[in-house]
Amino acid sequence: MPEINSYGGDSPIAAFATTPGGSALTLIRCSGKGALNLAEKIFSDPEKLRQTAGNTVLHGWIIASNEKVDEVLISVFRSPKSYTGEDSLDISCHGGIAAGKGVMAALRAAGFRDALPGEFTFRAFMNGKLDLTQSEAVMELVSARTDKGRSHAIGRLSGVLEHEINAIKQQLVEVLSGVEIFLDYSEDEISANADEAAGRFSGQHSVREILARLRALAQSWRWERIYQEGILAVIAGRPNAGKSSLFNLLLKEERSIVTEIPGTTRDWIEALISLEGIPIRLADTAGLRESLDPVEKIGVERSRDLLEAAELILYLIDGEAGITAEDTAFINELKQTARRKPLLTLWNKADINPLPSPAETGGDYISISAKTGKGIAELEAVIVQTIQERFNAADERAAASLGTVRQKNLVEAAAAALEEALALAEQGQPLDLIAPLLREAVNSLGEITGEVSTADILEEMFSKFCVGK
Amino acid sequence: MPEINSYGGDSPIAAFATTPGGSALTLIRCSGKGALNLAEKIFSDPEKLRQTAGNTVLHGWIIASNEKVDEVLISVFRSPKSYTGEDSLDISCHGGIAAGKGVMAALRAAGFRDALPGEFTFRAFMNGKLDLTQSEAVMELVSARTDKGRSHAIGRLSGVLEHEINAIKQQLVEVLSGVEIFLDYSEDEISANADEAAGRFSGQHSVREILARLRALAQSWRWERIYQEGILAVIAGRPNAGKSSLFNLLLKEERSIVTEIPGTTRDWIEALISLEGIPIRLADTAGLRESLDPVEKIGVERSRDLLEAAELILYLIDGEAGITAEDTAFINELKQTARRKPLLTLWNKADINPLPSPAETGGDYISISAKTGKGIAELEAVIVQTIQERFNAADERAAASLGTVRQKNLVEAAAAALEEALALAEQGQPLDLIAPLLREAVNSLGEITGEVSTADILEEMFSKFCVGK
Repeated sequence: MPEINSYGGDSPIAAFATTPGGSALTLIRCSGKGALNLAEKIFSDPEKLRQTAGNTVLHGWIIASNEKVDEVLISVFRSPKSYTGEDSLDISCHGGIAAGKGVMAALRAAGFRDALPGEFTFRAFMNGKLDLTQSEAVMELVSARTDKGRSHAIGRLSGVLEHEINAIKQQLVEVLSGVEIFLDYSEDEISANADEAAGRFSGQHSVREILARLRALAQSWRWERIYQEGILAVIAGRPNAGKSSLFNLLLKEERSIVTEIPGTTRDWIEALISLEGIPIRLADTAGLRESLDPVEKIGVERSRDLLEAAELILYLIDGEAGITAEDTAFINELKQTARRKPLLTLWNKADINPLPSPAETGGDYISISAKTGKGIAELEAVIVQTIQERFNAADERAAASLGTVRQKNLVEAAAAALEEALALAEQGQPLDLIAPLLREAVNSLGEITGEVSTADILEEMFSKFCVGK
Repeated sequence: MPEINSYGGDSPIAAFATTPGGSALTLIRCSGKGALNLAEKIFSDPEKLRQTAGNTVLHGWIIASNEKVDEVLISVFRSPKSYTGEDSLDISCHGGIAAGKGVMAALRAAGFRDALPGEFTFRAFMNGKLDLTQSEAVMELVSARTDKGRSHAIGRLSGVLEHEINAIKQQLVEVLSGVEIFLDYSEDEISANADEAAGRFSGQHSVREILARLRALAQSWRWERIYQEGILAVIAGRPNAGKSSLFNLLLKEERSIVTEIPGTTRDWIEALISLEGIPIRLADTAGLRESLDPVEKIGVERSRDLLEAAELILYLIDGEAGITAEDTAFINELKQTARRKPLLTLWNKADINPLPSPAETGGDYISISAKTGKGIAELEAVIVQTIQERFNAADERAAASLGTVRQKNLVEAAAAALEEALALAEQGQPLDLIAPLLREAVNSLGEITGEVSTADILEEMFSKFCVGK
């Protein structure tokens, strides 16, 4: 296992595991060699702490400078039976900002240092408690926004992905072993296979099977990413087209100030909604109007940036005013700059002025009224259908699914190596050219679970975690 | 003890004890009769849960509809050794929104109902685990924003206030006993005291001592409230006077958008700062300018409301423009409407245009430059001094301090009854008029600790708690 200098071995670390704030309790996590001894220094009953068995909860006070800091429950875990595999404590103190801060200060004074992001899970990995896919699943769980996202992450945390990767790798190692035995003993002619005896690769059939499995895994990422990050859907349109009203209607609660003044929405706001389980980050843009007001101008620039990042655009026409030249220009611009980006054009205020025929509008408009709510259910159905078509919902069916870009890149690297190996085999190239590619694929799969890993990769991976994890 | 219908006895309840969000863990608290049996239905190892002793931590999975919901640690507490005194569980699940939501859904399906705000602490009180001052201290701790606030709340949680109240009450009960014995047996002449024999009150000396102790306690509330709520300090001034710049400077980080456009700050923003341990809620107002823009107009109205609520006003002069007629009118208006409210007038942009002599400005201005930071340290010192003078920092010295308005009102009610009793005694009124007042004071003190209480009072008190507490 590589050494990660910045994570600093097994020294005692502490961090908030919940966000201190107005909640009832705050949880502080501590782990490391000597963590229990350090905690004795600030616990009201050090003797009890010293003698207690693992997996027990003690009640008492955190004491610093002879003053009570907070009344706490301490869950004691003794190595190796803990999350990290080290001696650990979970301190449940009172909620609010001051209590947690006071206990953290006492822990620091006792000799704990602040844990780095992901350091607890990193230690769990280093101590063999979790493989890398499970470690990543911990992070995915924390950021899961929907029940689907949670359920997939839980699958990976239970080892579903680890097993799939190991099963694929096992298949590949068997193919590779055959090749390597031949390469090692080629002169002794131990192979009964005519192809291999001639120095040619005979494992194409197995490799094609493995490749199909890897491709299915790689495909799972497209849909998985949506469950993790959500689809960014941006509502655009001229000032007063009713963008904020539509935003609120889709949100089903009042969050945005809706007024009749063009240019009111100065900055974009975003909210997460869920349509048929698909998380959608809905953004309401500033009025897309050329303005001389510098503050509003910043808003307009920002909304253009946002449209760049959008994965779905809802362009709103002010049905009362009709389709203006500005609308047409903007829709054309959007169609050109974002060719593959789904763009839904909506005719709002249909309650005041109904949508004219397609011959008149010259386009495919969805009729809605953000005021009365008419057409919104239909719009939601179209949004879901558009996303499913665009991102290929069928991919969702894979047994195991990938949880991170890192995993996806490694699966694709393994697949690419196998494709190259197959191409060489078809050209009748010798085994000693093919074997390194098979080995490369095995290594990529080993990197996914963390069997093969470098300090750089680990450090980069775990540093993305939140503190306290 | 009174019955609280809406809190519904000892049925199994559950609630988030930490805010679900991007943190590493989420803590869910469960309590009630049969809570452990219900939890068995959704825990991966029900047998272990059934047999485990109290104060132990189990590792496993929450299972619902045969699917893993989350990997958890469950701290098991058996009655009466728990926070509420009932069988209880603390479930530590993964952070993020989805994991906690999934576990809560499983708990509900198993038969737990959502706990009402304060319901856990209410049960702790009903089961004699905490008195009322300690229950309130739990809530104070959660909302404590400074170390001082925390330390005082911890004092009350340890029972410092309870002891002080009980000690005062004991003194009073002794006085009252003497009176009551005389009233009960007056005809038998059991009193050796000539005054009491004559039906007059002889306890004035003790009552004056008790009164002084109660007054000291009541005084402690003024300063305590500041530690709990902070002082609302509002920055006011004409557009472009540099309000947002001063706000950011006092905040020591960039939070407000500072631009050169008059009227940019449309709504007020607030941030908590701490000067020498005094929490100050610093508010930056919208430009105090008459405006035709309806959005800005709302902002101006709001800023006037804010000034009404302010406990300290920092009025900023644009030193570059000098003191305008609008400034003078506004300062005069502030001085009239808020006579007892401290108002500090500041001369900003002293780097561009230095503060003229007092003869020229006709007032007491503090020279600052929000741009260069010059004069800010002096301003902070003046703010602290102003607050200390206004709120009488000397009051802070009391041994025990009050933590809530409820406690303050009851202490004042007890003091008022004693004052009336003393007045009657001085008029030589008979004991049977004085005794009821002494009894009233004893009852008020009993209400503080919860010895004497009504369902209404308890319900009102605990419903202010946060959920999960």
